[in-house]
Amino acid sequence: MCNPNFISGFCNPLKRVSKSPISLRNSGGLVGIRCGVVEEGSRNDDAVYMRRCVEIARKAIGCTSPNPMVGCVIVKDGKIVGEGFHPKAGQPHAEVFALRDAGDLAENATAYVSLEPCNHYGRTPPCTEALIKANVKRVVVGMVDPNPIVASKGLDKLRNAGIEVTVGIEEDLCKSLNESFICQMLTGKTFLTLRYSISVNGKIVDQIGEGAVESGGYYSRMLQEYDAVIVSSASITEKFSIPTSQEPGANQPLCVVAASNHSSSIKISDLPAEAAARMIIFSDKESKLEPKLSEKGIETVVLDQISLDAILEYSKRQGFCSVLLDLRGSIDDIKELLQEGIEKNLLQKIVVEVVPMWVEGDSKNSFFGLKSLDKVIDIKNLKPKVSGQSVLLEGYF
Amino acid sequence: MCNPNFISGFCNPLKRVSKSPISLRNSGGLVGIRCGVVEEGSRNDDAVYMRRCVEIARKAIGCTSPNPMVGCVIVKDGKIVGEGFHPKAGQPHAEVFALRDAGDLAENATAYVSLEPCNHYGRTPPCTEALIKANVKRVVVGMVDPNPIVASKGLDKLRNAGIEVTVGIEEDLCKSLNESFICQMLTGKTFLTLRYSISVNGKIVDQIGEGAVESGGYYSRMLQEYDAVIVSSASITEKFSIPTSQEPGANQPLCVVAASNHSSSIKISDLPAEAAARMIIFSDKESKLEPKLSEKGIETVVLDQISLDAILEYSKRQGFCSVLLDLRGSIDDIKELLQEGIEKNLLQKIVVEVVPMWVEGDSKNSFFGLKSLDKVIDIKNLKPKVSGQSVLLEGYF
Repeated sequence: MCNPNFISGFCNPLKRVSKSPISLRNSGGLVGIRCGVVEEGSRNDDAVYMRRCVEIARKAIGCTSPNPMVGCVIVKDGKIVGEGFHPKAGQPHAEVFALRDAGDLAENATAYVSLEPCNHYGRTPPCTEALIKANVKRVVVGMVDPNPIVASKGLDKLRNAGIEVTVGIEEDLCKSLNESFICQMLTGKTFLTLRYSISVNGKIVDQIGEGAVESGGYYSRMLQEYDAVIVSSASITEKFSIPTSQEPGANQPLCVVAASNHSSSIKISDLPAEAAARMIIFSDKESKLEPKLSEKGIETVVLDQISLDAILEYSKRQGFCSVLLDLRGSIDDIKELLQEGIEKNLLQKIVVEVVPMWVEGDSKNSFFGLKSLDKVIDIKNLKPKVSGQSVLLEGYF
Repeated sequence: MCNPNFISGFCNPLKRVSKSPISLRNSGGLVGIRCGVVEEGSRNDDAVYMRRCVEIARKAIGCTSPNPMVGCVIVKDGKIVGEGFHPKAGQPHAEVFALRDAGDLAENATAYVSLEPCNHYGRTPPCTEALIKANVKRVVVGMVDPNPIVASKGLDKLRNAGIEVTVGIEEDLCKSLNESFICQMLTGKTFLTLRYSISVNGKIVDQIGEGAVESGGYYSRMLQEYDAVIVSSASITEKFSIPTSQEPGANQPLCVVAASNHSSSIKISDLPAEAAARMIIFSDKESKLEPKLSEKGIETVVLDQISLDAILEYSKRQGFCSVLLDLRGSIDDIKELLQEGIEKNLLQKIVVEVVPMWVEGDSKNSFFGLKSLDKVIDIKNLKPKVSGQSVLLEGYF
C-alpha cells in the first residue's frame, strides 16, 4: 500500500525524507527554512502538520512583538513543499514565506497556518489574497484571529474564493504559542507574569536553581520569551548583572529596573556597555541615582512614585506583548509593584520555582510585609514541572 | 516455543491465568491471599515477582509496626503456587504464610521475599529454617535486613544449606515500602514526616485540597500509612474532628494532640467516643484542659513544656515506626514542636501541598514567627505529584 513514488496511506506520517534545506533569507536576519518532507496519510495528518507550524513559528520566539508568532507549511501530495514563519514585525507574514518557498507547487496544495490569515492591508498585503492568488485548494487553520472585530473574516474571504477551510486543529497548542499576544488582543493588557523562587517553607530566596540560568534552563528560556523583565535595583547593584538569556541568538529582554527610595543608591559604574544599552530605570524622586547613569546612555524615568501601571504603559508604547516581574535580590522596591499588580488585577501568569531548601530565620524577603487585604485569589491550572533539583509551578491568575 | 503445558520462554510474563483464590485467615483478621498464577519466563521475571511481593506486602499498610511490611511469593515451573504477607506484629511472617499456601509445591520452587528472611527466634521461629525445611531451591530477596548487626546472616544460613540466593531485585521499591522501619533500624529514630499546605505565595493555609481527605486522596492514604499523627489542639477544638483515613479497613493513626498554653481551652465534649478512644493529649501545665476529658477516657500527658522528644519517646514505647507532624488550624502549639524538630534534626521527610491560591493578608499561620537560626537545610530528592487541583511536593531532610 505504500508506493514510494506517491507516498500516501497510513505509513508513518512522522517519518522524514531528508532533502537539502532551502533557506529564505529576509532582511531581519531571521530565516524561513524548508526543512524536509513529511509523508502524509490522510486528513488525520492535519495535526502533524499543524504541530510543525508551531515548531517553526517558535524560531522567532521573543522577536515578533507586537505581532504573534506564526508558522505556515504548504503540503502537496503528502510532501511538505514550502515552509515559513513570521520573523519580526514589519517583515512578511509566515504564509508569504511559505508560498514563496513552495513556488508553483502551491497550486492545489493544502496550506497549514497556526493562526487565521490576515485579511487587511497593514505593513504587508493581506495573506488571504496571497493564498487565493497561489490557487491553494485547502487551508487548515490552528485558531481564529483572537481580535473579535476581525475574527473569521479571513476565513470567510477564503471560503468565498472557493477554498476549503478547516479550523481548530491543535487549537490549544496554537493558543499557548501566543498567550501574551492573545491576552493583549482580548483585554488590551500587557501579559504580565510574576516569577520568584521560594523555599519549601515558603520563603522567597535569591537563588535560581542549578542549570536554570544556563542555555536550555527554564529561566534562560523565559528571558528569551519575554519582551521585558522588571527587576529590583538591588538585584543589579549587588551583583552587577542584568538578567540575560543564554539561548543561542536570543533576543534579550529590556531590563526595567525599579529603584524606589527604599533602594540603596544605585551604582552601575561597572556595568558593561552591552547591558547598559538594554536597560531602563524607573525611579522615584527620593532615589539616589548615580549621576553617571546618563553618561552610560541609560534611560531613566523619574516618577513621583514608581508604579506598575506606568511601566506597563511604557511597555505597551514599545510594542511589548509580554513582561516578566522577577523577584530577585532584596524585593523591597518590587513589593509595592507586586501589591499594585494584585490590587489592580494586572497579573496574568505565575511561575514559582520551589528550591529544595528549608530556610530558617526571619527572612527580609517574605510576602508578609504586603498590606493586608484578606483576599484569596484562585490560581487556575496549576501544574508542576521538574527543573533540575527544583520544582516549577505554573498557573494563571 | 510457548508450550501451554510447560509455560516458559518469553511469553508475556504479566499475563495472569485466573484461579480461585485460596485465603489464609489468621487471627489478626488480616488475610494472606493466593491471587492467581503468573507465567514465568526466565530470571528476567525476578523483578515481576518481586513487585508482586511488594504489592501484597502493602495489604498490611499501617498495621505492622514495629515490624516492616513484607510480602512473599513462591513460584514453581512458572506458576505462583503460594503467596503471603506479614499482617501484624506477633503474627507469622510472610514466608510462613506463603509456604503454608504452597504446601508440597514449595519443594524445588523459588521463594521471592521483599526483605531478607529473619534468622532468629523471636515471637515466631526463624523464616530461614522454614525455607530450608520446605526444600526450596532458590531464594530471591529484595533487600538485606537494614539492621547492620544481623544483615546478610539469614542469606548466609540459606547459602550454607545449599540454597541459591539472589539479592537486590527491585531494591529501591522494597526500600521505599519500609522507609520508616529502615529509618528506625539505622538511626534508632522514629520516622517523622512534616506535612502542611501552603498557598503559591508561601502562606500556610488550613485547607487540604479537594478530594485529598476522601478515599484514595493523598491525605487519607497518608493517615492510613502513619502510626500516629500530631496535630494542634486548635485543629480539634475548632472543628471537633480528628484526622481519619477514609481508606476501606484502614488502621487509624493515634491522634496526638499538642495543647500548649497558647491554646484556647480545649473543649472536646462533643467528640464521638470512637475518636476519643484513639486520642492522647500532650499538654503543659498552663493549658486549661476540660475536666471531663478523663471521663471520656482520653489519656492526657502533662509536661512542664510540650516537647517533640517526649512525643517521639512515647511513640517509640508504643512500637510506632512512623509519625506525621501535621500543620492544620492555628499552628501556635505546633510551631515550637516544629522548631525543636528542625533544631534537633528530628524530621526525616516533608510533604508540602501547594494549593492553587494566592493568599493576601498577614497570615497568623506563617513560618516567620520561628526563631531565627539563619540556617539552610537541603531537601533531597524533591519531587512533585499532581493531587486534584493542588501540587504535592515530597522530599527528604
